[in-house]
Amino acid sequence: MRILCSCAYDGTNFYGFQIQPELRTVQGEIEKVLTQIHKYPVSIVGASRTDAKVHALNQYFHFDTTLNISQENLKKALNSLLPDDIYITECKVVDDDFHCRYQSTMKEYHYIIDFGPYNPLYRNYRYFYPFSLEKFSFEILKEASKVFIGKHDFKSFTKTKTYKNTVRTIYNIDFELQNNLLTIKFIGDGFLHHMVRIIVAMMLSCAQGKYSISDLKQILAGKNRQLAPEIAPPYGLYLYKIYYD
Amino acid sequence: MRILCSCAYDGTNFYGFQIQPELRTVQGEIEKVLTQIHKYPVSIVGASRTDAKVHALNQYFHFDTTLNISQENLKKALNSLLPDDIYITECKVVDDDFHCRYQSTMKEYHYIIDFGPYNPLYRNYRYFYPFSLEKFSFEILKEASKVFIGKHDFKSFTKTKTYKNTVRTIYNIDFELQNNLLTIKFIGDGFLHHMVRIIVAMMLSCAQGKYSISDLKQILAGKNRQLAPEIAPPYGLYLYKIYYD
Repeated sequence: MRILCSCAYDGTNFYGFQIQPELRTVQGEIEKVLTQIHKYPVSIVGASRTDAKVHALNQYFHFDTTLNISQENLKKALNSLLPDDIYITECKVVDDDFHCRYQSTMKEYHYIIDFGPYNPLYRNYRYFYPFSLEKFSFEILKEASKVFIGKHDFKSFTKTKTYKNTVRTIYNIDFELQNNLLTIKFIGDGFLHHMVRIIVAMMLSCAQGKYSISDLKQILAGKNRQLAPEIAPPYGLYLYKIYYD
Repeated sequence: MRILCSCAYDGTNFYGFQIQPELRTVQGEIEKVLTQIHKYPVSIVGASRTDAKVHALNQYFHFDTTLNISQENLKKALNSLLPDDIYITECKVVDDDFHCRYQSTMKEYHYIIDFGPYNPLYRNYRYFYPFSLEKFSFEILKEASKVFIGKHDFKSFTKTKTYKNTVRTIYNIDFELQNNLLTIKFIGDGFLHHMVRIIVAMMLSCAQGKYSISDLKQILAGKNRQLAPEIAPPYGLYLYKIYYD
């Protein structure tokens, strides 16, 4: 029987979602607990990887079980055994051929920037913009986002060189400004490693006057990461939602 | 020359404000940095103690210096050397006989309770109420707060037995409910060790039906901590403001 779970986690004290030997990861913690419950090794498949310190409000994973346990009791058992920086929000039975990664249709990431003074209570949850806002233009920031919307080869905007296919579609980039807090919302069919953080950093630099809109277009067309050398810090990034049909 | 500083800190990774040997404290971290800047041992006087995991948005401390440095540069120097969970918001020169503890007139503490589902991203910043809200009454909660407003001997509501005088005045207890988030705001001339957290826990239990308003009055009159056995967790508590004339 295949179980699909949704979960939220605070990425601060994790070396990302994906399991890595000797390091504390979200997948590692969840598999440890599932193995404890099942009394045999259980592996999970995650819908999306997240980097060290990146948060998730709605991550999904699936696994197969032979246990006879209700969905509600499985959720309770997992939450009572998991550390307090991971929380399972739902468990449900899905078809045996359901795949949480391949069957997701869209992903939504949010990036939070605080233009106000530094507040240590939010240091792990927002990017405190360290530069002067004197030359900063929100109009140019919005204009810059349009360069990335649509189907593009985002090779210049990823760290990893191992992708066979670096073409992705960004359906929308939306901005919400409340007082000093800017949330940039990305919806796309998928995002390459570091793609959101590199795009955010390059857009901010453009709004600051360091790059022009036409520079960004050339960088995108250039398909070379060295053209886009900046990256925004991980702790401002949230995996906000994964869409399924 | 006496310097008064205001600061904010995330209490999560501190064993409270007050210096203790071998433990990481806010005072300890600040004195370490001041000693480094002065090249001789410097001690500070804090306006208010906070417990392990309790946060501060506006804590004050003072110290004496022989350094010839501008207030703005002192702030910069401190912030560049302090860990990222403490932030100095202001430094200013005050009279040599100014005392940040004795001259404070009122203190304001906030306690944040989340009645919604658990969210791991806020686990260090809110008390997620673990009980059913079926019998919970906000009306009774507000009614219960009135028991504590005014000048009372709060001996039943403190952990420590060493106070000579356990009489304090609470000027106001205010409630702000936004969606699932309740902030209880206490303003008083001073608060005993654990006093806010014990009052919060006892008021919540009263709103839940475990105690009546007249029970609370008897507990207050009884002047014995064993009558008030509950305490709310530290991470929901914030030192919000210290008032000076």
